[in-house]
Amino acid sequence: MTTYQKIVLASRPQGQVTPDNFRLETADVPPLQDGQVLVHNHYLSLDPYMRGRMSDAKSYAPPQALGDTMVGGTVGIVVESRHPDFAPGEAVLGSLGWAEMGVADGVQLHKIDAAKAPMQAYLGVLGMTGVTAWYGLTQIMQPKAGDTVVVSAASGAVGGIVGQLAKQRGCRAVGIAGGPDKCRYVVEELGFDACIDYKAGNLFDDLKAATPNGIDSVFENVGGEILDASLAQMNPHGRIALCGLIAGYSGALPPLKNVRVLLTMRVKLEGFIVFEHLDCWPQALQELGAQLAAGKLIYRESVAQGLVSAPQAFIGLLQGKNLGKQLVKLV
Amino acid sequence: MTTYQKIVLASRPQGQVTPDNFRLETADVPPLQDGQVLVHNHYLSLDPYMRGRMSDAKSYAPPQALGDTMVGGTVGIVVESRHPDFAPGEAVLGSLGWAEMGVADGVQLHKIDAAKAPMQAYLGVLGMTGVTAWYGLTQIMQPKAGDTVVVSAASGAVGGIVGQLAKQRGCRAVGIAGGPDKCRYVVEELGFDACIDYKAGNLFDDLKAATPNGIDSVFENVGGEILDASLAQMNPHGRIALCGLIAGYSGALPPLKNVRVLLTMRVKLEGFIVFEHLDCWPQALQELGAQLAAGKLIYRESVAQGLVSAPQAFIGLLQGKNLGKQLVKLV
Repeated sequence: MTTYQKIVLASRPQGQVTPDNFRLETADVPPLQDGQVLVHNHYLSLDPYMRGRMSDAKSYAPPQALGDTMVGGTVGIVVESRHPDFAPGEAVLGSLGWAEMGVADGVQLHKIDAAKAPMQAYLGVLGMTGVTAWYGLTQIMQPKAGDTVVVSAASGAVGGIVGQLAKQRGCRAVGIAGGPDKCRYVVEELGFDACIDYKAGNLFDDLKAATPNGIDSVFENVGGEILDASLAQMNPHGRIALCGLIAGYSGALPPLKNVRVLLTMRVKLEGFIVFEHLDCWPQALQELGAQLAAGKLIYRESVAQGLVSAPQAFIGLLQGKNLGKQLVKLV
Repeated sequence: MTTYQKIVLASRPQGQVTPDNFRLETADVPPLQDGQVLVHNHYLSLDPYMRGRMSDAKSYAPPQALGDTMVGGTVGIVVESRHPDFAPGEAVLGSLGWAEMGVADGVQLHKIDAAKAPMQAYLGVLGMTGVTAWYGLTQIMQPKAGDTVVVSAASGAVGGIVGQLAKQRGCRAVGIAGGPDKCRYVVEELGFDACIDYKAGNLFDDLKAATPNGIDSVFENVGGEILDASLAQMNPHGRIALCGLIAGYSGALPPLKNVRVLLTMRVKLEGFIVFEHLDCWPQALQELGAQLAAGKLIYRESVAQGLVSAPQAFIGLLQGKNLGKQLVKLV
């Protein structure tokens, strides 16, 4: 292979992401310099945070430049290496973006044990997804046995793990998701105690009925009315781990109405980005790995086939069409 | 004196507080039981939190019952005592409400040193007001030298102290207040670096201009657009001490629009009530007392004369008519 395909940011979305925000390009495989590694990507991770990087609004990371390869986590196999720590044939985790191949400095790659779990699990439950869930739950929500924990986007990759980790800590886990199929998955497969279908039209009442002892902590992925509904049931000294605001990723974020509760219930709300807490990753991955090995961590993957399907899969992710982790299989 | 006057809650406000929500009553001075103390109140403290107690919405404290004496902090002189720790003539801090006199169990009273500071200072800078400022600043905002700290309702009793304590820690203190007189007071008397007049019509731009290095932490007393303006300038890992939401005390609280910043800047927001942190009071009062004794803590009082003036003074407080601590002088 002397060329490979990649997808670049063609234009910034105005509201909804559309296919023409992306452009498929063919690139030459560059010659390696000392210290570099050429990786053949097998899986690409699609995650809501990418929507933020497509815009030029001020955020935690600079926007990505027009014409650059879309950012993203990848797993793949080393093809060629001029770095002493990596050899051809080894499986690695990297951030090589929406591309079939990529060149990385060795420091940007992490070897993974593909015998322990399928390669793509290191993009999900054993990677950023799992650690995000673990960090928000353990470091911000600080659950105690008996707490009621609410998770929005509960059928998503992160939300599904939050609820399972909360259950293992003796909490009542209540999910919020869109549609009866997702809610059934959250309760019957993932083991949440209840899941509210926000599309059913009775979000506030349904959530109230499912949280008879109030809400002690929230893992928030959505914002807007979904967060307002949780705030309405918040107990004193509630904690909110703010992980995402997908309600505002395709237009203006709806304003928050129940702000008063933050004061009257003395709530602690904290926005976080898991990459700023690298010190927590070993502990998180140890617990996630042990739970996975013991068969106590259920997850699903939605897998799109081929790089060319990535834009539509990403648009579907923002519209909530996926169940569990959204991946693109590149080989 | 065998009778005294008190003001009770006559009706719950619908939106704005009005004089007919209150009723002046005459009560008999009751005979003392063992362990009780009769106090002649000299000053009553008026504070925004009282608005919450007048409503029956769920909050951190139960609403006060219709017909009961309005709650409130008081300082006064012991008239009669059947408690071994208190003797007639001693100055005490209590929570005897909107009343000329009151009977308290000894445990509800604290002796104050009227030689160290005027009696009413124990309702303000050396009491709940000062500790509220200290707690939010030191425990939630955790300022470092060089930080930019924004304080809303900066000309109020709490806000004025927050800014001064922040300046003493090497911060840039920027206030937000309503009208040129208040802003002049905040800068020229209290020593803030700048103060934005939100009534001037350019809140967002003016605050941006006054915070060229962004905002590291916020002491929030107001909410709504005032908080949105601070969020728009927030630096990564900003902290918000949520002390009050006076924008919503006389009607619906305006929704919060810049919620996205809480995520993108990984902000920590915490609502708090100073009475839940009694362990901090000694340390806070030590610093406040030392600063006051050294002449480094400036404060003003707005004093209404006579119990009968309390309702109008309280309505004025909610409308921002006071400068500094709002008191009612009862003798």
